[in-house]
Amino acid sequence: VTAREIIEKKRNGEALSRHEIAFFIRGLIEGQFTDYQASALLMAIFIRGMSRDETVALTREMRDAGKVLDLSSIPGPKVDKHSTGGVGDKTSLLLAPIAAVCGVKVPMITGRALGHTGGTLDKLQSIPGFDFQPSLPQVLSLLRKHGAVLMGQTPELAPADARLYALRDATGTVESIPLITASILSKKLAEGIEGLVLDVKTGSGAFMPSSRLALKLAQSLVHTGKGLGIRTVAVVTGMDQPLGRAVGNALEVRECLEFLQGESPEDLQTVTFELAAQMLMLARLARTRRSAETMAREAVSSGAAWRRFLDMVAAQNGDIRVLENPELLPKAANVSRLEASRSGFVAQVDARMVGMASNQLGAGRTRMEDAIDTAVGIYLHKKIGDRVRRDEILCEVHWNDAACLHGTMALLGKAFQIRPGPVRPPRLIRSVMKG
Amino acid sequence: VTAREIIEKKRNGEALSRHEIAFFIRGLIEGQFTDYQASALLMAIFIRGMSRDETVALTREMRDAGKVLDLSSIPGPKVDKHSTGGVGDKTSLLLAPIAAVCGVKVPMITGRALGHTGGTLDKLQSIPGFDFQPSLPQVLSLLRKHGAVLMGQTPELAPADARLYALRDATGTVESIPLITASILSKKLAEGIEGLVLDVKTGSGAFMPSSRLALKLAQSLVHTGKGLGIRTVAVVTGMDQPLGRAVGNALEVRECLEFLQGESPEDLQTVTFELAAQMLMLARLARTRRSAETMAREAVSSGAAWRRFLDMVAAQNGDIRVLENPELLPKAANVSRLEASRSGFVAQVDARMVGMASNQLGAGRTRMEDAIDTAVGIYLHKKIGDRVRRDEILCEVHWNDAACLHGTMALLGKAFQIRPGPVRPPRLIRSVMKG
Repeated sequence: VTAREIIEKKRNGEALSRHEIAFFIRGLIEGQFTDYQASALLMAIFIRGMSRDETVALTREMRDAGKVLDLSSIPGPKVDKHSTGGVGDKTSLLLAPIAAVCGVKVPMITGRALGHTGGTLDKLQSIPGFDFQPSLPQVLSLLRKHGAVLMGQTPELAPADARLYALRDATGTVESIPLITASILSKKLAEGIEGLVLDVKTGSGAFMPSSRLALKLAQSLVHTGKGLGIRTVAVVTGMDQPLGRAVGNALEVRECLEFLQGESPEDLQTVTFELAAQMLMLARLARTRRSAETMAREAVSSGAAWRRFLDMVAAQNGDIRVLENPELLPKAANVSRLEASRSGFVAQVDARMVGMASNQLGAGRTRMEDAIDTAVGIYLHKKIGDRVRRDEILCEVHWNDAACLHGTMALLGKAFQIRPGPVRPPRLIRSVMKG
Repeated sequence: VTAREIIEKKRNGEALSRHEIAFFIRGLIEGQFTDYQASALLMAIFIRGMSRDETVALTREMRDAGKVLDLSSIPGPKVDKHSTGGVGDKTSLLLAPIAAVCGVKVPMITGRALGHTGGTLDKLQSIPGFDFQPSLPQVLSLLRKHGAVLMGQTPELAPADARLYALRDATGTVESIPLITASILSKKLAEGIEGLVLDVKTGSGAFMPSSRLALKLAQSLVHTGKGLGIRTVAVVTGMDQPLGRAVGNALEVRECLEFLQGESPEDLQTVTFELAAQMLMLARLARTRRSAETMAREAVSSGAAWRRFLDMVAAQNGDIRVLENPELLPKAANVSRLEASRSGFVAQVDARMVGMASNQLGAGRTRMEDAIDTAVGIYLHKKIGDRVRRDEILCEVHWNDAACLHGTMALLGKAFQIRPGPVRPPRLIRSVMKG
């Protein structure tokens, strides 16, 4: 079999065999499949699609192209959560200690911000000293002692994914269900987990806003996870407005600290406890959805999750003084306020626009090599459905660089929409799909 | 506009603007459009297609990416012929002197063999000393004095085509009507011609055997040529069996010498005089198809085309002694014969198999860097429709390397099919399409 034959087969709309997919991924790493051949194949896959069997084979080969963590020496169920990315989505930082307190082992590999969405690794960067590159023995020891570890992607794990993602990004072949499925799952399954909860976002702030595509992606993820022998659940959640009130790295960490100490916005609770409950059920630590949620809520209300978070951060060399005294977290030099131009009800807080506004302040990045400012961001005082009076504060903008401020304020002005009559907040949990 | 936006547009099945196509071709040469982006776009074009306007724009940009010969100082109509490639197709060598004698200026840029089909440049290589890289002043002088010049492609002419062809070859995107159209026409129109006759082959020996695709390609070529202001005619001709009797470089040159001296197989005459007549009509040197053919036939029967060929070759430093005494042409050391295993009528002389058999002897090449043996080849004693008796000679194999002989004879054995009842030779001129 040659690269060209494989490309021609997919070009003609035929299904590739497991052997051909293995040739593609190995060839990409070893050189028999060039970049320009890979991008022709990616375009053919984008247009012609892939069957479930092909997607399973692609995911398996991408996972097995690198190292897969061996967690067999760790007792207890290993379950993780992955989100397709949103604005103000800080649930990973909450789920790791909550699930760990309940008995789950969470070997969470997490990423950096790109585009308008945030990244857990960038949020952790606002905690001085936090080491997100533990060695394998350290990972095992952290999991054994604290039940969770938060770490960055390494080049040994799913190495083909980084190559393919760079090509997809440059060739307009990102938004393909089978390619996204294989990209997400190959990295997560390299963690050596038994169960995975997927938070598939839908709405303006989501990577793929269309609800039809979000459902298709959720199905594909669940089927592919199952096809690889992993217990998998996908929860489709609304990302029309940012999750919680804080958008921006240190601001979001602060919101997490408040959450773990019992004070938090309702929408953030709804999504976090839904995902936590699904994790506990996949881990077979709870029999019913209801008992799972009760366990998760008690982990927070008892203060156990908060203490666990402090232990986890300390064990990864993070400075826990900033957690105990959030005033020490990175802080922007200035705070400006956006006020309502009229009275009424908030009808829209467009998540994508808020994410872009936060990016403009320096909280995110356009290219992977950009530096970020962990201190800046946006804090929402009003969310969809809230009553607002003229001149009341809609949101606070935490900023350092005056050059960006004007554009940011203009964007936020467009993100908020106020209507005269009452507005219902959008539904958060759209569907739960099991493998 | 960015490379990714252009790729995404075509990926979605939309038409590209002239500006976007210009960005693509210029970017390919200047570096803003990488190889892997180009191959993703080529795949999207392959699957989604291109409109007539897009094909015209692509051809124009590919032509204008390099030098275009300025023949305005040469009096007389400039018309050329191009063939999509066949087996035993030596019409270029005949048409140049015939059309020149009739008053056409023929600035013929021609190529090398690839795959199972032959190339005019390789045939010329069997004439010692022949210089197929004249300088531009030499080209002008040759056209002025002799009315024709035969030359190889140079890197300055249509430079994007070579880059694109290499990518298409490696990524399974060769057989695309708009891409083939732009590739053929961009190179030919860089000759600075006013008219072009296209010989689109169909049948087993053709690059695209399907007659439906040959018709589509012929239409696309004619429309695109017209769209660029060039008088264009496409003749779809049958390539079920090799054209004429000789296949292989020196053998084909010898058949041309005989043709120009008045002795030639009927099928070669039919195609050559059809194409010659079309050239004369495009050149407006004849009003009717009939008078055009008469002019062309008289150019041969009078001996004028033969003398012109000698002059042309001499002017390009070729050794005309080998033309006057064909025994001096490169000659294989051995000749073997394939005999009929039974009596009957020849029903098939599969052109592709004969081309491949000739290649195995060393007459052609699989990769562009392969060397060729101009002496070897196949001479057909029987063609479709001929009556044959058991043990009569079907063809002669002229060979140098014994290692290849067995495979060649086996392939030729399969190429010939004999049936008990009479067989009609296939139609040669399938259709003539005008712009």
